[in-house]
Amino acid sequence: MRTTGYAAQSAETPLAPFTFERRDLRPNDVAMDILYCGVCHSDLHTARSDWPWTIYPVVPGHEIVGRVTAVGPEVTRYKVGDAVAVGCMVDSCQHCDQCRKGEEQLCREGNTGTYSARDRITGEATQGGYSRHLVVREEFVLRVPDGLDLARAAPLLCAGITTYSPLRTWGVVAGSRVGVIGLGGLGHMAVKLASGMGAHVTVLSRTPDKEADARDLGADAFLVSADAEAMTRAASGFDLIIDTVPVRHDLNPYLPLLDVDGTLVLVGQVGPMDEFSSLPLLGGRRRVAGSPIGGIRETQEMLDFCAETNILPEVEMIRMDQINEAYERMERSDVRYRFVIDMASLSDAA
Amino acid sequence: MRTTGYAAQSAETPLAPFTFERRDLRPNDVAMDILYCGVCHSDLHTARSDWPWTIYPVVPGHEIVGRVTAVGPEVTRYKVGDAVAVGCMVDSCQHCDQCRKGEEQLCREGNTGTYSARDRITGEATQGGYSRHLVVREEFVLRVPDGLDLARAAPLLCAGITTYSPLRTWGVVAGSRVGVIGLGGLGHMAVKLASGMGAHVTVLSRTPDKEADARDLGADAFLVSADAEAMTRAASGFDLIIDTVPVRHDLNPYLPLLDVDGTLVLVGQVGPMDEFSSLPLLGGRRRVAGSPIGGIRETQEMLDFCAETNILPEVEMIRMDQINEAYERMERSDVRYRFVIDMASLSDAA
Repeated sequence: MRTTGYAAQSAETPLAPFTFERRDLRPNDVAMDILYCGVCHSDLHTARSDWPWTIYPVVPGHEIVGRVTAVGPEVTRYKVGDAVAVGCMVDSCQHCDQCRKGEEQLCREGNTGTYSARDRITGEATQGGYSRHLVVREEFVLRVPDGLDLARAAPLLCAGITTYSPLRTWGVVAGSRVGVIGLGGLGHMAVKLASGMGAHVTVLSRTPDKEADARDLGADAFLVSADAEAMTRAASGFDLIIDTVPVRHDLNPYLPLLDVDGTLVLVGQVGPMDEFSSLPLLGGRRRVAGSPIGGIRETQEMLDFCAETNILPEVEMIRMDQINEAYERMERSDVRYRFVIDMASLSDAA
Repeated sequence: MRTTGYAAQSAETPLAPFTFERRDLRPNDVAMDILYCGVCHSDLHTARSDWPWTIYPVVPGHEIVGRVTAVGPEVTRYKVGDAVAVGCMVDSCQHCDQCRKGEEQLCREGNTGTYSARDRITGEATQGGYSRHLVVREEFVLRVPDGLDLARAAPLLCAGITTYSPLRTWGVVAGSRVGVIGLGGLGHMAVKLASGMGAHVTVLSRTPDKEADARDLGADAFLVSADAEAMTRAASGFDLIIDTVPVRHDLNPYLPLLDVDGTLVLVGQVGPMDEFSSLPLLGGRRRVAGSPIGGIRETQEMLDFCAETNILPEVEMIRMDQINEAYERMERSDVRYRFVIDMASLSDAA
């Protein structure tokens, strides 16, 4: 089917209207109208080729909420009219140990990204959610539970699962002491989700400016990382720190905050890290880890959890033709806390 | 009691004979004649003030095997004549959560090192095992099980427990895929201990030179880290990598070798680490951790395990007056795999 969206034609060009084909339905495919699409830092990095894998033209967007318009003959779980969602991946090998465990994000053959990846059958470039329509195999379609506000749910598909997954992987439960570094799209979800799990949540920030916001989001405490005395008092006080900072930064101030066997999980920065000392690792058996998104089963679990606990991202709704301005604002961290494109605006723009 | 040993008087002076006092027995103290003392890299670092906490004069040595000569009135577990051992610590607060868990090495108040630390009661500098006698509170004395060769057991008290503890902490069992980087005092013990637990053990080394030695020690496989093709083939092939390299080094080649959720544990290098990329951490939910020695209970468990499985360090016996030469050889990695001082040689030297 012919569809329209917004694409980057090169690293240097702004996103602009783009007409392209969505594949005809395969037997296990679900077609949907996209209602809303969140705007993730990865979209910007990919559009500008900050990472080495962009395939141009690229239609970004992997926080997708839509409504089913058609299903292939083998689809059993969705029907026309269902509220559905798609996240960061649209396929995987489905037979390796990771896929069998429901950890498709860690597929041995590599999962297929929602955009700027190669379709496993045709080799065509995948195109993301800044568009009117989407076709995705059933196994990678999520159900949006009743009661979850469709207009706000989109960022759960990346920012939500990327923070939910490490909270679950590292066993956060009621009473766990969780720190969150960075209060952007991912960070604000980490606060809400950890708080929803009953954890004692502390937001760490360089300045006191964000304290009120952090507490509004559900944080129990606020720690100014520039306050050496407060940092010393906080030593060994965290079971888990979710580090959402998307750029190179110094881990040295944070590692002593972990308790024995505590872990700092990187979910934001991809690439070389500033050097840090092994001393707090050896001294307290502390750990530094990374975590990608989550598997499909866990993503569904997260959506269900958010519906049950009434957790939703804080979003600023934009029109499709505001995307380039939105990227500029994201670079200035001028967003609270996630832009979401109202796809109804596309008809006028494209 | 008056005793003799070898001490460094400053960072610049070689170790030389030194006469000093061991404290009178407290009610819970055990006095011993030292029979053997292993020579650890930490001894050298401390003698030369490579770390900022040396108290001069310092008698190094924390891999100590001896025989009980006297016990205080409250001592219940040891009697004169028992074969005993002392490792890297001689005291801790005994009441914090870590001490109560038997993790005295992680004592909230800091454990008391066997040398260059302050006695918790008198504040005097502790002095280590390069000496004729030692007095240690009962709780920090280990039993050398029957059948463990006293002349070779000493390195178990640091090199042994430092590698045994992470193998246990990270759940190594029969069939676990364990990599060992560095084949010195710690590395050779990691190979023997992991092998004794039934793991599939691979030694990683820059050159093929050490393959025969590695296999003699019990390694099942050998991986040349300079061989890019072999390293690529080995990707995602390890559950745990024990990194015993004592100096700054590049972790980037090793991280992709970890399987999903795998951990690289640093047990050697203390201080700033070379920068490395977070990409393999995020991509495979991999982890970098550190681990210090182990608690007293685990150290006893390790000694018992070694006695049961007939695991012993490979040692080169030296006289006390060869210690400075031994340090020079250690710096050239010219030791297979641990020097042990025969304390009977001290009578002639000091």
